[in-house]
Amino acid sequence: MHTAVNESGTGQERKAPGRPRNAQADEAILDAVLEMLSSGQSVAAISIEAVAAKAGVGKATIYRRWPNKEALIIDAVAAMKGALPVPVGESVRDDLIMLVKANRSGRAHRYSKATVCLLPEFIKDGDLNHMYQAVIEPRRDVMRAVLRRGIETGELRADLDVELTLLMIQGPGMMQSMLNWNPNVAEEGFVEALIDAILRGAAA
Amino acid sequence: MHTAVNESGTGQERKAPGRPRNAQADEAILDAVLEMLSSGQSVAAISIEAVAAKAGVGKATIYRRWPNKEALIIDAVAAMKGALPVPVGESVRDDLIMLVKANRSGRAHRYSKATVCLLPEFIKDGDLNHMYQAVIEPRRDVMRAVLRRGIETGELRADLDVELTLLMIQGPGMMQSMLNWNPNVAEEGFVEALIDAILRGAAA
Repeated sequence: MHTAVNESGTGQERKAPGRPRNAQADEAILDAVLEMLSSGQSVAAISIEAVAAKAGVGKATIYRRWPNKEALIIDAVAAMKGALPVPVGESVRDDLIMLVKANRSGRAHRYSKATVCLLPEFIKDGDLNHMYQAVIEPRRDVMRAVLRRGIETGELRADLDVELTLLMIQGPGMMQSMLNWNPNVAEEGFVEALIDAILRGAAA
Repeated sequence: MHTAVNESGTGQERKAPGRPRNAQADEAILDAVLEMLSSGQSVAAISIEAVAAKAGVGKATIYRRWPNKEALIIDAVAAMKGALPVPVGESVRDDLIMLVKANRSGRAHRYSKATVCLLPEFIKDGDLNHMYQAVIEPRRDVMRAVLRRGIETGELRADLDVELTLLMIQGPGMMQSMLNWNPNVAEEGFVEALIDAILRGAAA
């Protein structure tokens, strides 16, 4: 899964002013955190030492980049989510499908169970929850904008409850990717089926 | 929250053959487990000793009733869910609203965070997950039957995906009650708004 690299690794793709960076080491560190969370380890059980050992780097490499464990974990979650997706702006249906798929691809897919393992931590630790919200809120804003555009163009009902629709779009997918909550729901074509069901409605 | 009772308590409402029971003690024990889970404690961190102390009973009282911690935790989750609800059988909309509300009332509401704290355990412990599924599957069956009835009576689309609809009905509510995932969604009238949105659809 992750690539072990030593501290003098040659990857220098990213540089911060006056501080040499090792992008490969960063990746290995973030993947190590996500793997540990995905396997059901609590934040309390994860130590900088264990992350360093798993990533094949020294502790100093981690401390040069992150002030503490909480900051490292939130960065790992942000890395899991990837870059903020940009809607095409033509069809609301297509944009919603793209946005939900973006939330379920790459690292987000590989480490889908990491979020589950963070949930009890968010209940215990308000600061951590606050940092997490700061990561996900910009993503919600992108989806809100698509829904509001749909209301304006007339693709969506004028009286649509945007916040409830946001929850309806994200809740089912989160329950599935985190927990496979309903094993009878097919993964193949899931996102398209969900968005179409939300758009069309269940009533005859 | 819970009522501390001593082992010689007088509550004898429920009796198993040849074994005296103390319903008040049972309630105090189950509430103690749910309170501990709700506060973010992991299954590993919960001991029979701690449950006994919190419930105000002796360890022997717990062991007379439950063979181990896992059985006690699953019984606590079942108690949280309450009795299996029975649909009225007139309107699909009304039945769905009643079923979702039943999942969110009483102990389920008071201890909504307990499920969150069990989720990482389900990833780590397949047996525990299996026991949990056995508790929730009969509840899903009740909702499935309502959806199938709606398709037959013509209240719902003939081509409705029952399993996906089940996930759409339960996913958003679970994300809200466990995590208050989208704080912008009003709690007042939430269930009615969700079921109506699922029935009517978002498209204009």
